[in-house]
Amino acid sequence: MLIAFIAYEGMTLLDLVGAYDPLARLRTMGFMPELHWEVVAPESTVTDGNGMEIVADAAGTPLTGYDMIYVPGGMSTRHLMHDAPFLTWLSTAASCPLKVSVCTGALLLGAAGFLRGKKATTHPSAFRLLEPFCSEVLKKRLVDEGDVITAGGVTASIDLGLYIVSRIAGKAIATKIREQMDYRFVMSHSEIHVSSVP
Amino acid sequence: MLIAFIAYEGMTLLDLVGAYDPLARLRTMGFMPELHWEVVAPESTVTDGNGMEIVADAAGTPLTGYDMIYVPGGMSTRHLMHDAPFLTWLSTAASCPLKVSVCTGALLLGAAGFLRGKKATTHPSAFRLLEPFCSEVLKKRLVDEGDVITAGGVTASIDLGLYIVSRIAGKAIATKIREQMDYRFVMSHSEIHVSSVP
Repeated sequence: MLIAFIAYEGMTLLDLVGAYDPLARLRTMGFMPELHWEVVAPESTVTDGNGMEIVADAAGTPLTGYDMIYVPGGMSTRHLMHDAPFLTWLSTAASCPLKVSVCTGALLLGAAGFLRGKKATTHPSAFRLLEPFCSEVLKKRLVDEGDVITAGGVTASIDLGLYIVSRIAGKAIATKIREQMDYRFVMSHSEIHVSSVP
Repeated sequence: MLIAFIAYEGMTLLDLVGAYDPLARLRTMGFMPELHWEVVAPESTVTDGNGMEIVADAAGTPLTGYDMIYVPGGMSTRHLMHDAPFLTWLSTAASCPLKVSVCTGALLLGAAGFLRGKKATTHPSAFRLLEPFCSEVLKKRLVDEGDVITAGGVTASIDLGLYIVSRIAGKAIATKIREQMDYRFVMSHSEIHVSSVP
């Protein structure tokens, strides 16, 4: 399994790292030795919204061949959602079987057309902005549409990461990873929407 | 106010970013325009424990002149706690008025001598390793000794960041930042130890 963590100028780094940590533990804690990931960005380095510079593993290459793409949010999503070259690049993930966003990353998945006909969520400040891109904005912490999962603001990235761990590897492994992360918050079922398989 | 976020080879990135996010919001949300921070590392770039490469703002420079140093944990702390050049460098922070660690970052603060005579905490897996460096290891999520604050494992970084925000800027601002981060977990008072001022 190969994951692309999408990085871009002005992203919120915690949006990315909140899920990167539990997902990477699937390999580092020995549960999935065959799991790999790359930080993929439009350019070879990106600076987050607070000035920290990250070096990408791949720059501007097509997003084909990944089993999952993970899109963080950030203030820069408000202009990137109208940025044709960025959206053209993101659209190369069309055949990716699992597309995931946290926070305003949903605006990017939406602008790339990946939320058409689907329910989705985002940071509470961006519910209105997300509406045109999906069938319904749900005020949930996590919305699982099978091949697309969207989550709420910033720290929802951790809940999203643990949720994906649970979906991939099961609840027992997710619990071990949660304990190693010393993470105490547990989403209630009422905060999660899972669409039934059609 | 100037913060040094210490980065090093093999660190756990979420340990750093969990507090970097709420602290940076003190400036980006307009509460403390005069707050600044730097990522400071022994080398010009560092790779975290999962392979992500970060570019430091300052490399190997003395840790003097910072109002706060923030030390994340990571598996590499087990050898860095015996690494004389690293500890010599970290010791240049001696005059820094606030030294903070999360997770096994406490082992580095301890090995540098900064926890002598103080109570402290760390990741639950490292309680025994921390014992020789401090007066008492407390099984708390956060221990505030005034000029030194230590916190528990990985995601305790977020609680630590919000705690410092509250100490610096007050509870009302910490609540606004928490809401913007969409963060739901609240530490109970029983999980925090604050030493009374002597």
